[in-house]
Amino acid sequence: MTTTTPDESPVIGIVGAGLIGASWAACFAAHGFSVRAWDPADDAEERLYKFLSHSMDTVPGALPIDQHGTVSFHQRMTEMVAGCDLIMENAPEREDVKIGLLAELDDLCSTDTIIASSTSSLLLSRIASDCDNKERVIIAHPFNPPHLLPLVELFGTAPDIVARASTLFQSCGKRPVILKKELIGHIANRLTSALFREALYMLEQGVASAEDIDACISEGPGLRWALMGPFMSYHLGGGEGGIDHYMKHLGPSQVKRWADHGTPEMTDDFVEQIISEVKAATHGDSVADISERRDQMLQALLGMKASAKPSH
Amino acid sequence: MTTTTPDESPVIGIVGAGLIGASWAACFAAHGFSVRAWDPADDAEERLYKFLSHSMDTVPGALPIDQHGTVSFHQRMTEMVAGCDLIMENAPEREDVKIGLLAELDDLCSTDTIIASSTSSLLLSRIASDCDNKERVIIAHPFNPPHLLPLVELFGTAPDIVARASTLFQSCGKRPVILKKELIGHIANRLTSALFREALYMLEQGVASAEDIDACISEGPGLRWALMGPFMSYHLGGGEGGIDHYMKHLGPSQVKRWADHGTPEMTDDFVEQIISEVKAATHGDSVADISERRDQMLQALLGMKASAKPSH
Repeated sequence: MTTTTPDESPVIGIVGAGLIGASWAACFAAHGFSVRAWDPADDAEERLYKFLSHSMDTVPGALPIDQHGTVSFHQRMTEMVAGCDLIMENAPEREDVKIGLLAELDDLCSTDTIIASSTSSLLLSRIASDCDNKERVIIAHPFNPPHLLPLVELFGTAPDIVARASTLFQSCGKRPVILKKELIGHIANRLTSALFREALYMLEQGVASAEDIDACISEGPGLRWALMGPFMSYHLGGGEGGIDHYMKHLGPSQVKRWADHGTPEMTDDFVEQIISEVKAATHGDSVADISERRDQMLQALLGMKASAKPSH
Repeated sequence: MTTTTPDESPVIGIVGAGLIGASWAACFAAHGFSVRAWDPADDAEERLYKFLSHSMDTVPGALPIDQHGTVSFHQRMTEMVAGCDLIMENAPEREDVKIGLLAELDDLCSTDTIIASSTSSLLLSRIASDCDNKERVIIAHPFNPPHLLPLVELFGTAPDIVARASTLFQSCGKRPVILKKELIGHIANRLTSALFREALYMLEQGVASAEDIDACISEGPGLRWALMGPFMSYHLGGGEGGIDHYMKHLGPSQVKRWADHGTPEMTDDFVEQIISEVKAATHGDSVADISERRDQMLQALLGMKASAKPSH
């Protein structure tokens, strides 16, 4: 399958068209970019087009359907990479797989193509270690589901290349955050796992059920975090004195609390307890049903935020 | 000022009508409860009624205005407590103040009145230590702003009294979570402070600005946390295999990440840096402006969630 592309719209290559890759494809195509996808799985092409038909019109800021970019599926990676401005790599989260794949892409792609990995937990310095042109290989970590959530975490060694990628992501509705240092888990997943550690610790200690601990987020601070991060939340928590008052008067009690935080022991029994409590909290709804409901609410939430955004 | 109360609607006493007390008053009155407030500050009565006129119609699930409960302000605490089913204590967050005040309330109130403290950081076993009838003293910790956010964390030593309070809070639109054990910071604030610790650590390490770390929540996982807590989020993160798949295949990499989490050193210079970065992130908007915008969005978000709620 081939496609013609207007000169002005960026061309994006998708390597691995599973959950993340297909979602990236929807995001780019909905913003008028041309997408060229490759995935070695037998049913990948069919699954990709099924996902697109279901998801393209849910992408926040999507263009009218007649302005969507084309999405082509290619049998060979060597053919797919032709003319790409950016490659999004979404292979399984294994260091050896990524090292080999990124080196192959580095060999195949023209020198001005940016090669971006969606990796959530691996380090750029490791996965790009076999590439000749390491500078054009970057991290571009999305948040699931990538066609809905704006955040993309960027890290690379060449500021001009990272800046070029950042502009490209912004033009398809993303909110890029550029990391100044390489870090295991980047930023967002370190924050979620710090929170989850304490959530698991309290479950282990028998303070409340998984369903009730979840409610302590989704009926409380989680509602605020959809609108602003922890720093701005504490700025408002300081009342009229803002963050200044918070840090000087309320901060010390928060710092003291850190010493009381715990780390759960992840025994087999405890893991079984977690699984069983979370399943109980679904009240019998399937993952697909809950995801569908979440994504509909995410769409509504993002639309509401976009219309409330201040001018600066 | 006095008030007459229909027999069937609960009567709530508010001790301390500042930010939290006034917000509680709005919540209860909007649901038809009678509210009796006391606060020793000179301008407390004026500030309370000003807050109510501004906030009553923003309470989620508020009754039509002609069904709102009355709110009376009383010059003496001894007079205010008469006929109250529940007292909400919202005094300053100092252990000595709360110990004295709760003991006084315990002396004054009729034996079937529940006395609830809004404390965020103190332990019930300490603040109720001078009360004769310790069992009727409980924790009922709201999340700011209490007239909007549904979460209320309950802890007490007598299950029947906690259950009675829980029913009362549910009937004014709250989502009570009953703690099975006493814990410093209860549940939600332990989760927020575990997250904030790692946020501060990354700021200290120079990974990103406070504004960018905030975006890593509000443009990513924070959007999901408004809709579901960490356990259900990881259930969906496990794809079709759900929490079972997540814990067994992705959990171990999360556990490994915990060892890489850090604790910032809260030097004076670092605190000044935090304050200056958060102020920069406000782009000149006042605390009042940002709060107003947040509360409008919270209202819209809660309305959207309420209409999307599944039947169970």
